[in-house]
Amino acid sequence: MAKVTQVSPLVVPLPPLGPVGGVRLGAAEAGIRYAGRRDLMMMVFPPGTTVAGVFTRNRCPGAPIDWCRAALQGGEARALVVNAGNANVFTGRAGVETVTATADAAAALAGCPPAQVFLASTGVIGEVLPAERITAALPALHGALTEDGWEDAARAIMTTDTFPKGSTRTATIGGVAVTINGIAKGSGMIAPDMATMLCFIATDAAIPAPALQAMLAEGIGPTFNSVTVDSDTSTSDTVLLFATGSAGNPPVPETGGAGLDDFRRALDEVLHDLALQVVRDGEGAQKLVRISVTGAASAPSARAIAFAIAHSPLVKTAIAGEDANWGRIVMAVGKSGEPADRDRLAIAVGGTWMARNGTVVPGYDEAPVVAHMKGQAVDIAVDIGLGEGAATVWTCDLTHGYIDINGSYRS
Amino acid sequence: MAKVTQVSPLVVPLPPLGPVGGVRLGAAEAGIRYAGRRDLMMMVFPPGTTVAGVFTRNRCPGAPIDWCRAALQGGEARALVVNAGNANVFTGRAGVETVTATADAAAALAGCPPAQVFLASTGVIGEVLPAERITAALPALHGALTEDGWEDAARAIMTTDTFPKGSTRTATIGGVAVTINGIAKGSGMIAPDMATMLCFIATDAAIPAPALQAMLAEGIGPTFNSVTVDSDTSTSDTVLLFATGSAGNPPVPETGGAGLDDFRRALDEVLHDLALQVVRDGEGAQKLVRISVTGAASAPSARAIAFAIAHSPLVKTAIAGEDANWGRIVMAVGKSGEPADRDRLAIAVGGTWMARNGTVVPGYDEAPVVAHMKGQAVDIAVDIGLGEGAATVWTCDLTHGYIDINGSYRS
Repeated sequence: MAKVTQVSPLVVPLPPLGPVGGVRLGAAEAGIRYAGRRDLMMMVFPPGTTVAGVFTRNRCPGAPIDWCRAALQGGEARALVVNAGNANVFTGRAGVETVTATADAAAALAGCPPAQVFLASTGVIGEVLPAERITAALPALHGALTEDGWEDAARAIMTTDTFPKGSTRTATIGGVAVTINGIAKGSGMIAPDMATMLCFIATDAAIPAPALQAMLAEGIGPTFNSVTVDSDTSTSDTVLLFATGSAGNPPVPETGGAGLDDFRRALDEVLHDLALQVVRDGEGAQKLVRISVTGAASAPSARAIAFAIAHSPLVKTAIAGEDANWGRIVMAVGKSGEPADRDRLAIAVGGTWMARNGTVVPGYDEAPVVAHMKGQAVDIAVDIGLGEGAATVWTCDLTHGYIDINGSYRS
Repeated sequence: MAKVTQVSPLVVPLPPLGPVGGVRLGAAEAGIRYAGRRDLMMMVFPPGTTVAGVFTRNRCPGAPIDWCRAALQGGEARALVVNAGNANVFTGRAGVETVTATADAAAALAGCPPAQVFLASTGVIGEVLPAERITAALPALHGALTEDGWEDAARAIMTTDTFPKGSTRTATIGGVAVTINGIAKGSGMIAPDMATMLCFIATDAAIPAPALQAMLAEGIGPTFNSVTVDSDTSTSDTVLLFATGSAGNPPVPETGGAGLDDFRRALDEVLHDLALQVVRDGEGAQKLVRISVTGAASAPSARAIAFAIAHSPLVKTAIAGEDANWGRIVMAVGKSGEPADRDRLAIAVGGTWMARNGTVVPGYDEAPVVAHMKGQAVDIAVDIGLGEGAATVWTCDLTHGYIDINGSYRS
């Protein structure tokens, strides 16, 4: 189904992902959509594993999102089942039945209530996901789980990603070393409908669910919620964080606190790393673009301005053309509707200030900017000149590759 | 500067545009950016001509926008000067000086105060517009104005449009026949930075400025404010409507009223016609797309949903690929953030309902939809199933042509 494509030029190698105490995982071929590759992934966790989750804000989410939102209320997880190739979105009652059957089957294998099974699906929208393909493959998959299955898992959740995405960090909690591993899949669409962002993170730390949820919710803001490929919001976006407690760190209060500072730092690094890997594998991406806005009326205002720039097709095509077209950045700032005064606006690309106080900088030399635009990493800085609000977002350029990938027929 | 391009496949021929009583107009070569073509347009109007205007909501507007907003307070117009090739945006004090010098020169020729001169500029952002090129060309241009210059005017304001845009209608006010002529230029970008939507309409009707402004403001909503090419908002968008009074219709109250019903109908037709011509000449457009949303919680909600669909790169690339990819429409509805229930949603393309009640229609036959998608006009209907809110917007598809046009270097 998916066309063969070149690996993104912005690829980063998958780091070695060692075991995370308590986590056993693996992948299998369920034959849901892809032939000759693993498309089903399972993780199991020991009793007492806590869980946190953040989901798409799309108002038309898939059935697995509904399931996870409900399961999250319990705060405990024993299994995760993820399939690639079919998103189980807009599938009506059949979608709910598939979710229930999958959770029941996984729960029986893991020896837990179905409400402690978490689910995610990614792939085509509007086609029924046959539960029996998953439930038929689960027993053998469950029997073969190991603590070394991270790379297999990272590859099994790919749809049209051009490279597997993983990240690992260590931290200490109360003097005890803990590990955090994360894998993600992103929006490398080839067969249309196949994009969604999924991210699964596990740690052997012992952390109560409320503290875990607070850290994840806070960590998502400047990472996964600060990246955009094309402004479109998947119906299935999911980030789940599991904490097995196998590391045996001293108890952490439900409210978290300073004892988690190092863990929070490591978690934020994993989230940042994986979010940028998703952008690096954005459809047709040739350049990774960082947009930093300062001097806005407030932080939310800075964020809205940064996203107006990051979403602008005119800005993104200019970057693809290696054209430091700051007039389009002015346009995007004004389009955001946020407080801005063109006569205080300043714009830099690659550290060279091109425009200040509402006009081009006297003696502006385009040469260093032209050189910067030819690289794979493009930095745009905008100072609004009104206040203290700041925000940074990341995106990629808009290229012919995006049109090729998304304008082709589904079949 | 601009590359030679093919005329849009969605071109409509320029209709014959006859005289409008009281209006004299023409075009000249001012050599601002383009070689060998007219790039300066002037209209003059008799004393007592009323004027209405609607401008971009971009927070970083060009100097001519500031000028027109101030001039509009007087409600009277005697001249209009428009140049193509340089937008006079983000030009600081130099931009204000150019505007003032241009208005002074035109006022001297037209025999009126500068505040009765209206100005618009379209083209590159951030380069100083040399006033002397305009003021040097104006006297000869003014001396050669005729009542038959409409086509010349429509061509002179083009930047990278691939065809000139005009529309004409007649109406009666109190039994007296009046004429409305309009010209517009749109967003056929070839040299980047060159897009903006300008529209100038003139009528020989006698209508007080407040009634004129109310009709224009209302008429813009379902026309120019219901079209999008790429979601980006120009810093220079301008619609101006001039009423000379030469037709000698009976007096119209300042509040308008039922006596203007036929005029309003004709004005709305001109606005609708010109707005759709702008979309038909959108960058890289191969298909004109109409998106009708019904059953939303409110009319503004329907409009927000329709624009979420019209702005979605995934929807627009699918249309370019002639792929009736309704899963992306579901995504865009949910992305809008407006009230929606996926289990009540229904989606039709070309009149064929594909999805209803949150899942694909039983026995759905894709054949008529595939045939419809191959045409130049694509109709998408979405029923939200919640209320009575309805809205219709128009856009075009997102093609390789868009990337070619906007990803090329400025020079």
